[in-house]
Amino acid sequence: MEIERSFKPYLTSHVWFHTVNRTVLGGPVGRSSHVCFNFWLLSLDTGLTQGILERLESGEVVIGDGSFLITLEKRGYVKAGLWTPEAVIEHPDAVRQLHMEFLRAGSNVMQTFTFSASEDNMESKWEDVNAAACDLAREVAGKGDALVAGGICQTSIYKYHKDEARIKKLFRQQLEVFAWKNVDFLIAEYFEHVEEAVWAVETLIASGKPVAATMCIGPEGDLHGVPPGECAVRLVKAGASIIGVNCHFDPTISLKTVKLMKEGLEAARLKAHLMSQPLAYHTPDCNKQGFIDLPEFPFGLEPRVATRWDIQKYAREAYNLGVRYIGGCCGFEPYHIRAIAEELAPERGFLPPASEKHGSWGSGLDMHTKPWVRARARKEYWENLRIASGRPYNPSMSKPDGWGVTKGTAELMQQKEATTEQQLKELFEKQKFKSQ
Amino acid sequence: MEIERSFKPYLTSHVWFHTVNRTVLGGPVGRSSHVCFNFWLLSLDTGLTQGILERLESGEVVIGDGSFLITLEKRGYVKAGLWTPEAVIEHPDAVRQLHMEFLRAGSNVMQTFTFSASEDNMESKWEDVNAAACDLAREVAGKGDALVAGGICQTSIYKYHKDEARIKKLFRQQLEVFAWKNVDFLIAEYFEHVEEAVWAVETLIASGKPVAATMCIGPEGDLHGVPPGECAVRLVKAGASIIGVNCHFDPTISLKTVKLMKEGLEAARLKAHLMSQPLAYHTPDCNKQGFIDLPEFPFGLEPRVATRWDIQKYAREAYNLGVRYIGGCCGFEPYHIRAIAEELAPERGFLPPASEKHGSWGSGLDMHTKPWVRARARKEYWENLRIASGRPYNPSMSKPDGWGVTKGTAELMQQKEATTEQQLKELFEKQKFKSQ
Amino acid sequence: MEIERSFKPYLTSHVWFHTVNRTVLGGPVGRSSHVCFNFWLLSLDTGLTQGILERLESGEVVIGDGSFLITLEKRGYVKAGLWTPEAVIEHPDAVRQLHMEFLRAGSNVMQTFTFSASEDNMESKWEDVNAAACDLAREVAGKGDALVAGGICQTSIYKYHKDEARIKKLFRQQLEVFAWKNVDFLIAEYFEHVEEAVWAVETLIASGKPVAATMCIGPEGDLHGVPPGECAVRLVKAGASIIGVNCHFDPTISLKTVKLMKEGLEAARLKAHLMSQPLAYHTPDCNKQGFIDLPEFPFGLEPRVATRWDIQKYAREAYNLGVRYIGGCCGFEPYHIRAIAEELAPERGFLPPASEKHGSWGSGLDMHTKPWVRARARKEYWENLRIASGRPYNPSMSKPDGWGVTKGTAELMQQKEATTEQQLKELFEKQKFKSQ
Amino acid sequence: MEIERSFKPYLTSHVWFHTVNRTVLGGPVGRSSHVCFNFWLLSLDTGLTQGILERLESGEVVIGDGSFLITLEKRGYVKAGLWTPEAVIEHPDAVRQLHMEFLRAGSNVMQTFTFSASEDNMESKWEDVNAAACDLAREVAGKGDALVAGGICQTSIYKYHKDEARIKKLFRQQLEVFAWKNVDFLIAEYFEHVEEAVWAVETLIASGKPVAATMCIGPEGDLHGVPPGECAVRLVKAGASIIGVNCHFDPTISLKTVKLMKEGLEAARLKAHLMSQPLAYHTPDCNKQGFIDLPEFPFGLEPRVATRWDIQKYAREAYNLGVRYIGGCCGFEPYHIRAIAEELAPERGFLPPASEKHGSWGSGLDMHTKPWVRARARKEYWENLRIASGRPYNPSMSKPDGWGVTKGTAELMQQKEATTEQQLKELFEKQKFKSQ
Repeated sequence: MEIERSFKPYLTSHVWFHTVNRTVLGGPVGRSSHVCFNFWLLSLDTGLTQGILERLESGEVVIGDGSFLITLEKRGYVKAGLWTPEAVIEHPDAVRQLHMEFLRAGSNVMQTFTFSASEDNMESKWEDVNAAACDLAREVAGKGDALVAGGICQTSIYKYHKDEARIKKLFRQQLEVFAWKNVDFLIAEYFEHVEEAVWAVETLIASGKPVAATMCIGPEGDLHGVPPGECAVRLVKAGASIIGVNCHFDPTISLKTVKLMKEGLEAARLKAHLMSQPLAYHTPDCNKQGFIDLPEFPFGLEPRVATRWDIQKYAREAYNLGVRYIGGCCGFEPYHIRAIAEELAPERGFLPPASEKHGSWGSGLDMHTKPWVRARARKEYWENLRIASGRPYNPSMSKPDGWGVTKGTAELMQQKEATTEQQLKELFEKQKFKSQ
Repeated sequence: MEIERSFKPYLTSHVWFHTVNRTVLGGPVGRSSHVCFNFWLLSLDTGLTQGILERLESGEVVIGDGSFLITLEKRGYVKAGLWTPEAVIEHPDAVRQLHMEFLRAGSNVMQTFTFSASEDNMESKWEDVNAAACDLAREVAGKGDALVAGGICQTSIYKYHKDEARIKKLFRQQLEVFAWKNVDFLIAEYFEHVEEAVWAVETLIASGKPVAATMCIGPEGDLHGVPPGECAVRLVKAGASIIGVNCHFDPTISLKTVKLMKEGLEAARLKAHLMSQPLAYHTPDCNKQGFIDLPEFPFGLEPRVATRWDIQKYAREAYNLGVRYIGGCCGFEPYHIRAIAEELAPERGFLPPASEKHGSWGSGLDMHTKPWVRARARKEYWENLRIASGRPYNPSMSKPDGWGVTKGTAELMQQKEATTEQQLKELFEKQKFKSQ
Repeated sequence: MEIERSFKPYLTSHVWFHTVNRTVLGGPVGRSSHVCFNFWLLSLDTGLTQGILERLESGEVVIGDGSFLITLEKRGYVKAGLWTPEAVIEHPDAVRQLHMEFLRAGSNVMQTFTFSASEDNMESKWEDVNAAACDLAREVAGKGDALVAGGICQTSIYKYHKDEARIKKLFRQQLEVFAWKNVDFLIAEYFEHVEEAVWAVETLIASGKPVAATMCIGPEGDLHGVPPGECAVRLVKAGASIIGVNCHFDPTISLKTVKLMKEGLEAARLKAHLMSQPLAYHTPDCNKQGFIDLPEFPFGLEPRVATRWDIQKYAREAYNLGVRYIGGCCGFEPYHIRAIAEELAPERGFLPPASEKHGSWGSGLDMHTKPWVRARARKEYWENLRIASGRPYNPSMSKPDGWGVTKGTAELMQQKEATTEQQLKELFEKQKFKSQ
Repeated sequence: MEIERSFKPYLTSHVWFHTVNRTVLGGPVGRSSHVCFNFWLLSLDTGLTQGILERLESGEVVIGDGSFLITLEKRGYVKAGLWTPEAVIEHPDAVRQLHMEFLRAGSNVMQTFTFSASEDNMESKWEDVNAAACDLAREVAGKGDALVAGGICQTSIYKYHKDEARIKKLFRQQLEVFAWKNVDFLIAEYFEHVEEAVWAVETLIASGKPVAATMCIGPEGDLHGVPPGECAVRLVKAGASIIGVNCHFDPTISLKTVKLMKEGLEAARLKAHLMSQPLAYHTPDCNKQGFIDLPEFPFGLEPRVATRWDIQKYAREAYNLGVRYIGGCCGFEPYHIRAIAEELAPERGFLPPASEKHGSWGSGLDMHTKPWVRARARKEYWENLRIASGRPYNPSMSKPDGWGVTKGTAELMQQKEATTEQQLKELFEKQKFKSQ
């Protein structure tokens, strides 16, 4: 294939962004199928990249990045339960490598690996972590067509204290590092309560940089019962230019939520760009609180992981809904991001660098020895295959835990100690009572 | 926890290997449960590492590494269908990083990433690839307690030509690089036919280095019908010191095959060390030819991926069977290798570096906010959980393809071109006929 | 057990109804567990039975009967597709036997087997069929404690014609036979549109007999979008004394609908007795139109059939919701009805005759040879068992057909001829378009 | 359709057997598809029926009957755990009706409902039960083209006593009633040990009537490890003219066993007719002891029930294997027997009476209102549909109980009392130990 021979600029240049001779892309826009890009031209001699809002306003698709915490947990650098990003100082090579993989896969945003990196979670290390994360993101972004986004998330103290001043201070501390490191824009993500998300937006807009805000909610709305449409309205009124959802639910459910947000904005005659960064897990059985409550979280989620074809479907559906900032959250590995870039290649006019190592719709199998494996090098094959779980002794859905606690209560207070036998016993009693 | 505070030598030293004060490990040896290692002592001041045979003969457990092709395909550096390791020269950072992750996870062997890197597959690049792969493996092995193994696998020409001289020459070419780079031992792996595996062993033993040989077969034996016990006997007679299986089947099926090999050796009064490097996929529905024939191969295997707990179970069962070289093949990510090291920590007396970021049996969840998530920080929870697939519209098992072709025929000739419409039609006709 | 010895009046008498010495039933009312009824006394020397409303008003549980069409299709007397009850004249023994089984199982109502037996479906045979059905129901009802209910259902012409006069005439014709045969009360069931159900109630109340009305709708309401609460209100205002749902959905979904009906009545300050006769199939994957649209209807529903334990759970939940007329529809076999009677035996004070052949919660297994089968003679065993489908190549849920047709259109016109190739092709095209 | 109009002789005559004008059956013999029988002629004016061996020797297909114990348990006349046929005297109408349904469905054999009706199980009632069962079978057989077979099965005492004389006496007692009632031939069925089955055959052949013998074993052979081929040889040498399997396994597994029996006979140069009467349950997860050990036995087998299409497939495969006595055991309802008769209608030249109420391959749906339901009136539809279980929280396979007991031990001694708490505790301990 032509691609193999002509597409090797990444070996000699740090500019990885290419456009396709658009004359070859004349077909109808639908689900991409064995798209052929025969001519590649270097598009970005200058190295200048447009800002996030310019891109979105011009109708361009912006591809987000994927999962850092979950991916690096599996690689050995993040501790489940804590879910903090000290790896940026402890193992910068590992973090840099993951950024590189997302960049190669097509990401246009290098989000700083600063999830939960506020002072309340990281104590004295917080500042070093935020600074190092910015440096790593910027270093890799500079090797391709990507922007750097400084990211903050919900605090662990909102549930108990709701202390607006204290919480805003935590946000402001991280923001100061982002400003110092001059990130390109800001993301407030993973909020279960719109009130706290609004506080985040209010804090971030002070910087003058564009602000994106996403909540980890489903169609039922935030944990205080505020529906998605109203959440969207409040976030935009607070100053967010881009709104949407991230984490907690699978692509299908997440896009339902984004649709409700969109309708809420339309009803309020407000405008914002739409963003979605869902899980790469199938979660048809979640309740309002998302995948945390599934019994498989976090060490038994394997069978739920989306295939690349699931993600191509998601990318198309997000695009059709009007979402233009399309990425992923927990579970999104580099090949999932590549799947977004491949699905939307006809619209964007180019493939990501990592597609050098990927035949569209399995076309790399054309050269397989076995004829029945060669026969899988077709879009129809992968689109229609109902893949098996390989686990005949297991069910297909789970009943979420949660034991009736749907909002902040004393039970949800974070503990530093292990759960005691007595606490376990109380939980089981409660669960038993509920299941009757 | 004590571990967190005391176990940070990797930051100041390149020696990562530690022993436990064995006085704290007095309990009965069973499935490990919240093993506590309160005292860590530096064990290897010298940096000298023992050879593979010395280790195995002393009864030590040797932990292999995991999946390179499949893992790097998902990271964007290997092309499915080709499955060749040109990444060692194109993207050495990515390969190095993966080696590092396996080392941190507990691997005692850095296998050179030279799968399919013989001249028939890689043409003029073959020599550079083999040399670079050796350098990368050695570089990382030097940072911990690991040996370097030079690896070769079955050729693509055996099925058509069975030209012993030509095939042995291909093996010898790679061996010459391994000798030049002075690897510690050699692995001949992924053989479907014992005849070709014996040729490989015969070639490799000329080097004087220890030779391990594994076949990608199940309990039914090799593709010419030679049973596992007889395969084992032939390999040992040819000179292999370590024999076993790799790839193609899940841990459960693979250990059945190793058991048959062991019984074959015992019946023939032969001795060898046992080795297993199975898939990290559940494949209860495979036929004789393994996971290649499953309709999900290679882009829809996600729901079959083993959990860390599945792998702990595998490690224990392998150990109980007498296997002492325990690793993995396709699908094994660093956290799977860590699971082997954690399960066998009581026997080995130490945990791997990456366990710094992993609580045994989920104990990291002890600090989670939600009480029902904290309640998951228990061995009993994860051992007994029947995790859901999240795919209610999908089945739990698939019928393998294969269409009646169980051994080398003209149909299996590798093609350079895409499958034609006519060929597809013929395949579907044949499949239709068989399913009636 | 005492039951075995003392409970044999059915051999010497046609009066099957017994009460328990209530002094032995002092425990708390919950899910029944190995209920022991040591003393049986003959309660009905007179043979006089109370009317349906007297029973319900006194708080008594009335147990309905089960599936005639589906059950007799499997026995060879009803034709799927037609679903008409000509068996009452062609094979009266088969129909009588099924009535007897439901009576023995605990049914208090013998519903005339007159489903779809209006003139538009049965032509000249309609009158004979209705008369014979009444005679059979009365004959069997006389052998126990059961009432006879004359039943009508929605017409096949409503969807196209909505001709109130013509439809009411069809209802009136059946009613005249019921009046002549002096049934005890009337049931208007299986209505997808509340408008037609109201017409039925308006017709039936002219007889002066009590009228029950059930719709085959789910929580989304009737096929014109009328919500369940409003359907209930209209039916009661039209004169129905008993309202609820039957058919189309499983017990769980059906009780959700009944709950909405109950709330609708409460909001309107109306009173009526509640009735539920759901499917004995698990249908979590249904859309608004119910199980007809599931791809498995009607010849592949086997794996969805409820166990007796599922039905005990349903009976308890229905009772707790306040439903006092509890029966079943398609799929309910005699043992399912027996399960209702056994679950509610503590409240009712007696077991049905067929419990002579059934140990509560599997206690009959106490005498099994194998100890592990004996160990199944426990409530906890059957309540907690997640039974396997035995079909590892099959999914757990299906996507309903329906192709976008959610209400009456020309496409839904009944045809007398087979579907043509051209019609099939058009359907597939439409389906294909929708699934993209 | 022509069938509807012309096929009504059952209303005017008690002779139900018809042949097809074979000139209309010219097509190739394969899986039947919308077979049309336009002309029906009365074939049996005389009422004389050929014996079982004459039929089989002429190559005719003999269709057995189905499940009595399980079916009548669901109808309320048999007690699970006991599994004895006292219903023949307690509720003869219910037994007669089931015989009639099987006759209408196409059965050529009315097997006396005498399973477990030996003196050791039924005490003083045994003789009345055997006599009444013969009368009922003869009465119904006379209404169609069916023979009466007297049936015996394994005793409950073989496992402990192995007292040949005592066991043969039990067999002889039943045989004496069969001789008195002049049944047409004899069936020894449901034997787990070939030794006892041989005793049964030796007893039965003394009558001079043809003897069929079936064992409830799988491909692994009898519970003492005798392989199926050798079982077959011993049974034929003992005098059985017809041999095969019944119960315990699904059709697929059962036919594998029959194939092994056939091969055993061929190797020994013996001849016998082949017979199969498998379960109508899917049991891919059984171990050697069959469905009794599945956790779902006997009250949770619903999702495993075969569809009519599964049974058509079974009938075709049995026929292709050379089996000519084709019936069913537990779970076979009348519609399953009809499916055998319909699948083999092209070979036999006629349809059973109950096909009057069944369109071949769902053709009755041609007249359904909804176009997508009409579209299901096709062989391709039902053959290819992977029906859903409707149970997303359940697995597809179960692990059989059995706890290591694979042959007669003290634990298997039948008890008359309920399992004690102490016994349950011991069982759970044993199970726990084994699962580790």
